[in-house]
Amino acid sequence: MIEQRIRNKAFLDKIISSEAASLLIKDGMTVGLSGFTRSGDAKVVPLALADRVQKSGEKLKINLFTGASIGDEVDGVLAEAGLIHKRLPFQNERKMRNKINAGEMLFIDQHLSHTAEQLRNGFLPPVDVAILEIVAITEDGQIIPSTSVGNSSIFAALASQIILELNVAQPLGLEGLHDIYEPGMRGQRQPIALTSVDQRIGTPYIKIDPDKVAAVVVTEKSDSTSAIKAPDEETEVMAGHLIEFFEHEVKKGRLPRSLAPLQSGIGSVANAVLHGFLKSDCTDLEVYSEVLQDAVFDLMDAGKVKFASACSITLSPERAADVIPNIDKYRDRILLRPQEISNHPEIIRRLGLICINTAIECDIYGNVNSTHVMGSNMMNGIGGSGDFARNALLGVFVTKSTAKDGKISSIVPFASHVDHTEHDVDLIVTEQGLADLRGLAPRERAKVVINNCAHPLYKDALLDYYNSAVKRGGHTPHLLEEALAWHAKYLQTGSMK
Amino acid sequence: MIEQRIRNKAFLDKIISSEAASLLIKDGMTVGLSGFTRSGDAKVVPLALADRVQKSGEKLKINLFTGASIGDEVDGVLAEAGLIHKRLPFQNERKMRNKINAGEMLFIDQHLSHTAEQLRNGFLPPVDVAILEIVAITEDGQIIPSTSVGNSSIFAALASQIILELNVAQPLGLEGLHDIYEPGMRGQRQPIALTSVDQRIGTPYIKIDPDKVAAVVVTEKSDSTSAIKAPDEETEVMAGHLIEFFEHEVKKGRLPRSLAPLQSGIGSVANAVLHGFLKSDCTDLEVYSEVLQDAVFDLMDAGKVKFASACSITLSPERAADVIPNIDKYRDRILLRPQEISNHPEIIRRLGLICINTAIECDIYGNVNSTHVMGSNMMNGIGGSGDFARNALLGVFVTKSTAKDGKISSIVPFASHVDHTEHDVDLIVTEQGLADLRGLAPRERAKVVINNCAHPLYKDALLDYYNSAVKRGGHTPHLLEEALAWHAKYLQTGSMK
Repeated sequence: MIEQRIRNKAFLDKIISSEAASLLIKDGMTVGLSGFTRSGDAKVVPLALADRVQKSGEKLKINLFTGASIGDEVDGVLAEAGLIHKRLPFQNERKMRNKINAGEMLFIDQHLSHTAEQLRNGFLPPVDVAILEIVAITEDGQIIPSTSVGNSSIFAALASQIILELNVAQPLGLEGLHDIYEPGMRGQRQPIALTSVDQRIGTPYIKIDPDKVAAVVVTEKSDSTSAIKAPDEETEVMAGHLIEFFEHEVKKGRLPRSLAPLQSGIGSVANAVLHGFLKSDCTDLEVYSEVLQDAVFDLMDAGKVKFASACSITLSPERAADVIPNIDKYRDRILLRPQEISNHPEIIRRLGLICINTAIECDIYGNVNSTHVMGSNMMNGIGGSGDFARNALLGVFVTKSTAKDGKISSIVPFASHVDHTEHDVDLIVTEQGLADLRGLAPRERAKVVINNCAHPLYKDALLDYYNSAVKRGGHTPHLLEEALAWHAKYLQTGSMK
Repeated sequence: MIEQRIRNKAFLDKIISSEAASLLIKDGMTVGLSGFTRSGDAKVVPLALADRVQKSGEKLKINLFTGASIGDEVDGVLAEAGLIHKRLPFQNERKMRNKINAGEMLFIDQHLSHTAEQLRNGFLPPVDVAILEIVAITEDGQIIPSTSVGNSSIFAALASQIILELNVAQPLGLEGLHDIYEPGMRGQRQPIALTSVDQRIGTPYIKIDPDKVAAVVVTEKSDSTSAIKAPDEETEVMAGHLIEFFEHEVKKGRLPRSLAPLQSGIGSVANAVLHGFLKSDCTDLEVYSEVLQDAVFDLMDAGKVKFASACSITLSPERAADVIPNIDKYRDRILLRPQEISNHPEIIRRLGLICINTAIECDIYGNVNSTHVMGSNMMNGIGGSGDFARNALLGVFVTKSTAKDGKISSIVPFASHVDHTEHDVDLIVTEQGLADLRGLAPRERAKVVINNCAHPLYKDALLDYYNSAVKRGGHTPHLLEEALAWHAKYLQTGSMK
């Protein structure tokens, strides 16, 4: 059985327990884990490490680098145990978030395509140990990732030591879905040849130096499943606005009926909006994204999406139980790539993607906050939204117009943190409506954003702010002494009203 | 004489006066002008238009699209005459700026690589008339641009009508310096083959449909010269900080002695910093930028820079008098490209550029405002800084630590407008010092920015703000009710002190 998975016998001798493998991790090390949006993450060795340190009471802190978020359990346990000095480039776990916001651990919120580049150039601490989940080791000693690629290939290339978590709970059918490409150093690289979503440019395995493999740990721990909420009435309305917009663009000849390859960010709202395509007339859709969520598989099953490229598959428990064991069914319609390829500006710009990402708040001029609640507290991170939005054919941001039962307006006079500048934001969609900001100057943008997207509860106050600001003048009129007053009021009273 | 310039006889019949040509421009039209950073701009027809309208009193408003800024005279006259409904993607003329900030004309502040893409996709009003400065028309009816390429090739491709301003004051020696490449529609294009700064990928001329050429106007009006200030003591100190940093990176093996291709933004400070390389040990430098200012020619003359690619040449009067007539001297060391190629994310990321751009202000976490004075008033525009910084090997922002005789701190608690998010800012340099932000989390960034870059006048107040904010907590600690108080105070009292 295990020989089916470990086809190069030399690796059989490297099998040890997760506890033994965890001993390779020393205080002060930088550890690179496989994993992207909870899937394909290394699980048992990090948990064994936490267990060991908690039992022994030894002092140990590591830098933890991943693809994006990993399973709640691993990030939660490591954060709670106080084992992390610095984490990058993304997380979305409650206990970790609390530690970050309390200043008890450091977090670098990074464009997901940047991490590999910065590692290659030595701008980040070098990776001492890579812990990578795989489904198999090939005859010639190459490794097959599982449900995500993330940063695994760059970690494998640069780490001093590699620990492999061979996960027998992940089906062997995943083999062949990956397309691993290493662009090489900036300044010395060739164009990335990818010109269509379904094109293979690399190998179905990650190439490794077998001498660096210090341990193989056999595991059968499943991926954390998606915490994404199902579409609700409001997200369905939002999807409707967007589909209507696309239909109009098709009618005007600005988009073909197959639109353009779609990217959809991590999160319930973006997923729900994608789900809305089920009701559209669109066919032959393509997806070029960082993560494939439930919606993409639903659209494939419905014959709407013909091909999907990403760097991970993250599903709800129900969908995972159906899709992952039967992954063969999607074999010819899916590719998983390293995140620097799924999120590469070169490819995003060339393919001309429609990029749909979730905002926490938008200001009246179209600047978007994707990360910080009330300006200070990190939610998850920017993820790939910056890679995508700036290079998109259409940069779309979606958010419900209010949060916390109407106590927070998602459309604000001034964003309390800016992740996406107005230069990169073409459309804003709330359940109230859609603001098409293409070709508009700030004073035009403000009126469209307020009138189309703001909740009636806040519309008049936003117009008042805007009109008072205009009296004072400016290209982007503001009243700086009042600009953040809505947020300050919320922090003081619990409501922006 | 004119036959040397107009080698296809059919075009001789199209020669008319600028006044006559200006009659082709009608109310409501969108006009695309050649010109990038004041150079190679269409001059006489727009001025004739303003003259005609002012004399006739007719009601006429146009949308004015260019490469970037054009000469002061043209933008100033058109703005003052009230002829512009909407302007994009960049300007830096005083009267126009005042009109924009007064809300008397509209301005779209756009990434300089985005305009061509948006035009191609029909996301902006179509260009009715392109007015392009050229130095020659070839035997087979193709056109040779002058001192800039800017958006001329996309305007020529998409405009319904073309007016050519054949400028005999621009030397014929400019012919052969251009490399015109059209990437094609997103979703249907091939990789852009450019892998080195000195590589030709296109043609030395802009291809046009001769039937669209409605007029040829012969002119001898010179380019506006650069308004850039010479380096001063403070900018020399800033250059020193940066050179020292680069030398350290070379020593650590993170950069070769030839560094990486340099981009330097429009503006006195960025130019002055580039000038600092004259005193460095660096050799065989390359430039891949949007504009070649005095510093690049000084560095070429000193044997420091071996090749420079850009989309325009903009020089001081003294340097222009020397360089432009003797452009042959630089023939093998310069290429001028369309701005979507000079600023293309694909190329910037592939080549791994060191990008040096000017900030108006930076917040303590490294978010940069490049455009808006006190949050509301447009200065010039983001230009190419967003194209470059996000895709850079190193994203460097330079600013003097104070402005207005110390009454404004360029390092502030909270940026009053954000053009570059902390994700894209690797280094901040003021005359006080250099903040190397690579691999730092926000709380680490704040200390380095304040301690290394802030002026002593403001350092304690910034530390006070930061320390108070930290007590409240957060990944990026802020006191939202005080965050913009420095700006509000300046607006009220004329000083942040």
